[in-house]
Amino acid sequence: MTGRFITFEGGEGAGKSTQVRALVAHLRDLGLEVVQTREPGGSSGAEALRDLLVTGEAGRWSPMSETLMMYAARANHLEQVIRPALERGAWIVCDRFSDSTRAYQGAGGGVTPELIETIDAAVVGDTQPDLVIVMDMPPQAGLKRALARGDSENRFESKGLAFHERLREGFRRRAAAHPDRYCLIDADRSIEDIGADIWRMVSDRFPEVKGS
Amino acid sequence: MTGRFITFEGGEGAGKSTQVRALVAHLRDLGLEVVQTREPGGSSGAEALRDLLVTGEAGRWSPMSETLMMYAARANHLEQVIRPALERGAWIVCDRFSDSTRAYQGAGGGVTPELIETIDAAVVGDTQPDLVIVMDMPPQAGLKRALARGDSENRFESKGLAFHERLREGFRRRAAAHPDRYCLIDADRSIEDIGADIWRMVSDRFPEVKGS
Repeated sequence: MTGRFITFEGGEGAGKSTQVRALVAHLRDLGLEVVQTREPGGSSGAEALRDLLVTGEAGRWSPMSETLMMYAARANHLEQVIRPALERGAWIVCDRFSDSTRAYQGAGGGVTPELIETIDAAVVGDTQPDLVIVMDMPPQAGLKRALARGDSENRFESKGLAFHERLREGFRRRAAAHPDRYCLIDADRSIEDIGADIWRMVSDRFPEVKGS
Repeated sequence: MTGRFITFEGGEGAGKSTQVRALVAHLRDLGLEVVQTREPGGSSGAEALRDLLVTGEAGRWSPMSETLMMYAARANHLEQVIRPALERGAWIVCDRFSDSTRAYQGAGGGVTPELIETIDAAVVGDTQPDLVIVMDMPPQAGLKRALARGDSENRFESKGLAFHERLREGFRRRAAAHPDRYCLIDADRSIEDIGADIWRMVSDRFPEVKGS
């Protein structure tokens, strides 16, 4: 038996964490082993890198340094958590993964797709997500929500609206280019409506959950 | 006026730091502006990454994560310290640089040269060292010296003799392949003899210091 790997992507304040929790609960109700995790982070080394990445001033790291730190953390997360879980047949639900690097450091920050894809092939290789759920909403609305949370992990939120518009476009382009593995969700709706859409997509994509 | 960029490379306990200090003092005596720096580290972001890299258990990070963290730190160091200094005409003397990644994570750790060179081209680009001084000695002798220092930055020292033999070979191959920019120094001699050799090489390579 092989596990399934689902990632949630999108800008700030799009409601990813809420939907991650709802999907994890739904899958666990079916008796499946589910690992709920996040990036950057998800393993002890990667969480130490997360602390450096998401706090401090917006200009603390260049997009190039960020890209390399994100993939250093991702390699650690894959080695320590994701691959062992998939090998024992668990499901993984991960809040952000490679597409956030493509959007934030690539589309938003100007690191070339060629460099990102070369590193992605070396680090992620065949462990690509089976399904990527992209939570899409206008960045103004999402940033307002994210800022209202008022936590200290606000380094990326402080990068300005033009940056956040570039990264929304990055997520949308990626989803459009890979319709087989990506679902774009209108995230500017009620939590219940979004959750129902996500469950429909997951059960279409993985019919085994219907019979569970 | 453009600055000069000199790096020191080699295994543990080869006496790099001593010779870095001696060269820096010699150049400053001639009235030159010299920036003495080191890797991993040399800038505030890079020093934070150094703390994660050089402490803890040998298996804390895979060679892949190390490579990406080293280049994340290097990008920060280049942006914040090295390029601004070279642009104002300063000399840089740096204890370790890209060749340590090639040796430790590449030759020693098995990360492919193709990946390292792709990242090196993106991060370092044209800011390659003008001169690389490789301090060469048998790893047994170097490790003995390094362990006698007894500091807490001993994560790489603890990787075992076979690892340190592979990285010595990596440094020697690199120096042999690029005789125009690399000097291999027999580091198993007195501090004074090594220092005299280094000064001869530096003044041959940069004749402007003779007239200073």
